[in-house]
Amino acid sequence: MYKVYGDINSGNCYKIKLLMGLLDIDHEWIHVDIMSGESRTPEFLEMNPNGKIPVITLPDGRHLFESNAILNYLAEGSAYLPSDPFLRAQVLQWQCFEQYSHEPYIATSRYIIKYLGRPEERMKDLEVRRKGGYMALDVMERHLAESEYFVGNSYSIADISLYAYTHVAEEGDFRLGNYPLIRRWLDRLASHPKHVTMT
Amino acid sequence: MYKVYGDINSGNCYKIKLLMGLLDIDHEWIHVDIMSGESRTPEFLEMNPNGKIPVITLPDGRHLFESNAILNYLAEGSAYLPSDPFLRAQVLQWQCFEQYSHEPYIATSRYIIKYLGRPEERMKDLEVRRKGGYMALDVMERHLAESEYFVGNSYSIADISLYAYTHVAEEGDFRLGNYPLIRRWLDRLASHPKHVTMT
Repeated sequence: MYKVYGDINSGNCYKIKLLMGLLDIDHEWIHVDIMSGESRTPEFLEMNPNGKIPVITLPDGRHLFESNAILNYLAEGSAYLPSDPFLRAQVLQWQCFEQYSHEPYIATSRYIIKYLGRPEERMKDLEVRRKGGYMALDVMERHLAESEYFVGNSYSIADISLYAYTHVAEEGDFRLGNYPLIRRWLDRLASHPKHVTMT
Repeated sequence: MYKVYGDINSGNCYKIKLLMGLLDIDHEWIHVDIMSGESRTPEFLEMNPNGKIPVITLPDGRHLFESNAILNYLAEGSAYLPSDPFLRAQVLQWQCFEQYSHEPYIATSRYIIKYLGRPEERMKDLEVRRKGGYMALDVMERHLAESEYFVGNSYSIADISLYAYTHVAEEGDFRLGNYPLIRRWLDRLASHPKHVTMT
């Protein structure tokens, strides 16, 4: 059986939970509390030398880390990862966008507010991240004017990657009122009969 | 013919140049000066709504952005991207590590020093990035104790992604003296008969 080491409140970990739900992949979830250093123990670093969640263990015992790499591995051969080479590259393109231009702004704002409780010394940082987060939302809204999903007009792991932190963006003080296409896309994903919520 | 829109001094763009050299892919290079706003014009945003380089145009006119997505597309079917599903996932794993835990520290330090000229108001930021950069180098050194390349013991696009900014890390004031395995790995890649240098 697969094992998933993570915290379900982390969007990066929730991505795995969501795909496993859609694909009916049986798994054991092992909670890792990063705030108390559980991702920096020698045992954990054996699985991921970078000390980050999520990590999965395959049924044969091998480990894999980085949420988007795990999604690609698990989705191979399913409807959530196209077989066409250009569409596959577009899936990666939006996943890379998510990790570089979306997550560091939207997820980190949420982290500063929800986990750290808005400490005074992070307020300037939060302001910078707000700007980057809205830029990422602008890019998404623009793209959704062309298509109901991010790649090839069907639900793929590119949508899962972007859904994870966008659907909780308001916890990072982002307002989605001016983003009607994003809100409709969020509803579209959440209405899937096998959808799994974060909590 | 392929077109590549980029700046060869950007490691993210150089990744594409390096792989195209190794694979003898004929292409036209179109220089984009991000400092003068050339990646924010309406024409450029049509290719990449996120306004970042590199972007490639395929021979059939379609566009692709995000360096690691482009590498995966171009390397498909070659020795630089394994066919085994687990090895492919490991390639992505290290490319995601590069974009999230390496590039924002090592490449951005280099940018602050080389492009911006160490402005006083970025000195505290530089200090934070220094710590993250050395953490990334530690993870790489540890991994290279097990293997000569990052994935499957052969040269892959995971190495290309990590090489791009590691080989110019000293321009970001990172010292590689304590990283003998990284230095040997850099030399290994640079000694490939089809290696292309950044400048």
